Amino acid sequence: MDMNTLKTWPEAATRLIAVAAGRAPADLVIRQGKWVNVHTREVLDGHDIAIADGRIAAVAPDLSASIGPETEVIEAKGRFMLPGLCDAHMHIESGMLTPAEFAAAVIPHGTTTMFTDPHEIANVLGLQGVRMMHDEAALQPVNIFTQMPSCAPSAPGLETTGFEISPEDVAEAMTWPGIIGLGEMMNFPGVVNADPKMLAEIAATQDAGRTVGGHYASPDLGAPFRAYVAGGPADDHEGTCEADAIARMRQGMRAMVRLGSAWYDVESQITAITEKGLDPRNFILCTDDCHSGTLVNEGHMNRVYRHAVECGADPLVALQMCTINTATHFGLERELGSITPGRRADIILSSDLKTLPVEHVIARGKTVAMNGTLMVECPHYDWPPAARQTVKLGKRLGPEDFIIKAPEGANEVTARVIGVVENQAPTRALTATLPVTEGRVEAQGEVAQIALVERHRATGQVTNGFVSGFGYTGRMAMGSTVAHDSHHMIIVGTDREMMAKCANRLGEMGGGISVWKDGEELASVPLPIAGLMSDDPAATVAGRADAMVAAMAACGCTLNNAYMQHSLLALVVIPEIRISDLGLVDVTKFELTELFE
Amino acid sequence: MDMNTLKTWPEAATRLIAVAAGRAPADLVIRQGKWVNVHTREVLDGHDIAIADGRIAAVAPDLSASIGPETEVIEAKGRFMLPGLCDAHMHIESGMLTPAEFAAAVIPHGTTTMFTDPHEIANVLGLQGVRMMHDEAALQPVNIFTQMPSCAPSAPGLETTGFEISPEDVAEAMTWPGIIGLGEMMNFPGVVNADPKMLAEIAATQDAGRTVGGHYASPDLGAPFRAYVAGGPADDHEGTCEADAIARMRQGMRAMVRLGSAWYDVESQITAITEKGLDPRNFILCTDDCHSGTLVNEGHMNRVYRHAVECGADPLVALQMCTINTATHFGLERELGSITPGRRADIILSSDLKTLPVEHVIARGKTVAMNGTLMVECPHYDWPPAARQTVKLGKRLGPEDFIIKAPEGANEVTARVIGVVENQAPTRALTATLPVTEGRVEAQGEVAQIALVERHRATGQVTNGFVSGFGYTGRMAMGSTVAHDSHHMIIVGTDREMMAKCANRLGEMGGGISVWKDGEELASVPLPIAGLMSDDPAATVAGRADAMVAAMAACGCTLNNAYMQHSLLALVVIPEIRISDLGLVDVTKFELTELFE
Repeated sequence: MDMNTLKTWPEAATRLIAVAAGRAPADLVIRQGKWVNVHTREVLDGHDIAIADGRIAAVAPDLSASIGPETEVIEAKGRFMLPGLCDAHMHIESGMLTPAEFAAAVIPHGTTTMFTDPHEIANVLGLQGVRMMHDEAALQPVNIFTQMPSCAPSAPGLETTGFEISPEDVAEAMTWPGIIGLGEMMNFPGVVNADPKMLAEIAATQDAGRTVGGHYASPDLGAPFRAYVAGGPADDHEGTCEADAIARMRQGMRAMVRLGSAWYDVESQITAITEKGLDPRNFILCTDDCHSGTLVNEGHMNRVYRHAVECGADPLVALQMCTINTATHFGLERELGSITPGRRADIILSSDLKTLPVEHVIARGKTVAMNGTLMVECPHYDWPPAARQTVKLGKRLGPEDFIIKAPEGANEVTARVIGVVENQAPTRALTATLPVTEGRVEAQGEVAQIALVERHRATGQVTNGFVSGFGYTGRMAMGSTVAHDSHHMIIVGTDREMMAKCANRLGEMGGGISVWKDGEELASVPLPIAGLMSDDPAATVAGRADAMVAAMAACGCTLNNAYMQHSLLALVVIPEIRISDLGLVDVTKFELTELFE
Repeated sequence: MDMNTLKTWPEAATRLIAVAAGRAPADLVIRQGKWVNVHTREVLDGHDIAIADGRIAAVAPDLSASIGPETEVIEAKGRFMLPGLCDAHMHIESGMLTPAEFAAAVIPHGTTTMFTDPHEIANVLGLQGVRMMHDEAALQPVNIFTQMPSCAPSAPGLETTGFEISPEDVAEAMTWPGIIGLGEMMNFPGVVNADPKMLAEIAATQDAGRTVGGHYASPDLGAPFRAYVAGGPADDHEGTCEADAIARMRQGMRAMVRLGSAWYDVESQITAITEKGLDPRNFILCTDDCHSGTLVNEGHMNRVYRHAVECGADPLVALQMCTINTATHFGLERELGSITPGRRADIILSSDLKTLPVEHVIARGKTVAMNGTLMVECPHYDWPPAARQTVKLGKRLGPEDFIIKAPEGANEVTARVIGVVENQAPTRALTATLPVTEGRVEAQGEVAQIALVERHRATGQVTNGFVSGFGYTGRMAMGSTVAHDSHHMIIVGTDREMMAKCANRLGEMGGGISVWKDGEELASVPLPIAGLMSDDPAATVAGRADAMVAAMAACGCTLNNAYMQHSLLALVVIPEIRISDLGLVDVTKFELTELFE
């Protein structure tokens, strides 16, 4: 049953009424569980749930009148019956999985609704790519709503994306059935300065009656924050401290608070509820970014819920934060997020409300997972060649493409170097004195070469520079077509031959990650869809990712989150210095800069 | 500034941002008050509010940067700054006032948003009448959203209304700018039995993404209630006890709880919050029906708020019940209901949060009332002749039209009598033995005559019957064109000549109420618009209504709410026996019955 075949409430109403009245049999009745009511914040023992046409028909102490010979009966046996969990903001691409495989990975964890912003594919394939994600999402047995990406490119003038998103694209997307709002408005300086393009995207969303996602990544809660709020974003997930959450809620936003693979923002913000005692209705939990390994080994929204409870949240309040609060935020409170009549029958059975073992997951009235095992198919979209052939190098690369020529007659140079900092997203703008051999600048010591290989338009263009901090030694290269946000190809290496082999290999794979040492590929993660996603299962991808991280270590890299550091080196909105297809970018000044001082 | 000239948030965004950033002056700044925050449920002292284009641009401790030479400044002087109050469900016609005069009456009480169901005019003028109410509403300086009436006639087959409402009408109304949802679905047996017409109206509303109002007037919280909820109504205001409120909230409805002129349902239900401790977000306050006298002498939503606080509600929780809870319910939480950026600048200044003296009312950024005095115009719609000439008698009535012929040859008859019961809406089906004179049955003693005079199609038809319980004596008649729900004309009298004079007088007035005694009119309340409403001010109408009630007493009537009893005698959905244009109605059996046994 995909979103297109699920009957709407009014379409199902005649039957729901008959089942609720006891005049007609239900498709499914769950018997005698504890009804976790997120509207009243109560647990009500001894209730039945009757389901018909994928929706809840009735909840009452005894619905045996709705059980016919064909009715499936599940005995809850006193377990908690709670609404399926909602992830209020996330990027599927972060898992390096397609929507289908992402869904397959998270359904056993009890996630039945996701609000996803396919920002990465938008940079590679534009509106068409967003539509593909939207269309695969619509095939799934759980609810995946799409937030239309707002900021591609995220730094106009400093990079060239595969495609750009326009206000007209946003307006068109608002007419699609699965679009729920605008994805995070990252260009917060644009909003603060009333950039007409950004405001036009927000207007198209508000005029469509949909929710504008926010992204205000600054600690300044003064005038710029006020101006951003006045611009229209209705939520924000960039808060990191209690004051951030409180400020957002007071200003009429919803505080979205995340626990992702590398985001730990719940503990520091949930005190706004647990200690300051603010009304919790505007506090929402999300993941933002989860790697496939996290999904395989730790969980998804159930992990966030448990963490919130461990941080001191009342379990029922924490549950509201990932069910009804989220549904209300997106205008879906009559469609999902609670176990009440008319809503999609998305239900978890669990023996314990605090640790939340996810024992049985029902979505739209069908059992979709039991005891951690997926019980349904998550259909794959037929990704077209345009989505599978996005790595366009224009030529076979050789070592010569990675030569950095010294200024005429120089014996050594002072070069700008991107300094990677352990456990931090910002880089440091370093310089290094490097030797020149036969007119070529040679990286040495801590400094490696970095190359941004244009891959959207087959220009064959390579932007070369220097990076330090990975600790690479020997003859190696590490390359990835996941290179936020424009997603060209980033190759970091100590050897130009290895770098060329790595780049060509990524071209052959159609994108992904590849690690080379001494002439051999140590590990690879094929990401053939847009160079961002695999359509293999999460466990497979997680295994490859683990091997890739091990290969980076084998090349001498000692960083935590080494791969994430690599993939952010072209993210030209985070200081201090990055690389793009247009050259070296001084992100402090938001302008291009020269490689040599 | 009417609803058509108020800029939308996206239209105003550029300026709101500039004001919030301190780059441009506001239209109005309110300085240094206590910000009552209904999102977080806090009071925050020492805040400024900046307003531009009728919307809130910013709220912060110091917005002096947004004050320019042209900026109006209001000093809050430490008073509470709270959102304007919302009435979640009401019938403007109950006040016998037009929307403009109703608005003029309630604005000084701090009501800045109303959700109105023009059910009465729908019975008289159909969709066209609803549109007229909608259009006058749109002219007002406060927010009046229209709920499309769902049930005209309320009892098909038992009465003839002026017009009927169809699912197609509902679908059309959903495209109007001021329509917010479907008015109370009173035909709850229809929903429980999946009546296709009722479900089509609900479907048209849900498909438009709007809110379906409920009306489940039964104490049975079992299968019929469950079936009603499964049909789609999203709220209900017919609850009268705590269990009603709890059942509605648990089932995913919002409990609307009313204090009207004759409704006292708050005290008995608010214990769901104050004592049972349920999440209050789904508990909403409303008035349903307010007479003009209540508005003049007691207040409107401020009266409901104070009452809720007196019943033990936390003032901030009670305030949420008539601001943000209501806005969220109707999908308007980003448009109104809180003092936060982007929302309509609807603000009350008050010195005390418990007794809530309404000292200053601002709507859309303009001062609309101060210390109980209206400060703006509430423009009148140019009501067309079709709305002012709705009393169509077809002829001049004489005493002969009120003759009740006895069966051939009878000397006395046993007649069915509508028995009015003090302080109850249901009537009792009584019988009386009445004498016959020259073939005419004569009322006597406690029994008076009642006549329903057809007034929509000029058929000249009069349905005669008997009523008891008013206590009328002498030669009198009391008539009204407010006669729920079909709003023909009801004349109750002891004398056929008086009845004829009363009916003709109402025809000349174009509708209203008239009381006659001994050949003279003692009192009248002209209601020229649809025979339901006056376009005079509330105080004038209230004064006339007082005189009318005094005149009823002068005719011997001793009932409480005597006028309401009169106006409900044709309400053929409430047992036991009523009168309609089709005859005497046995409401217990939902069928027509004979006058004589």
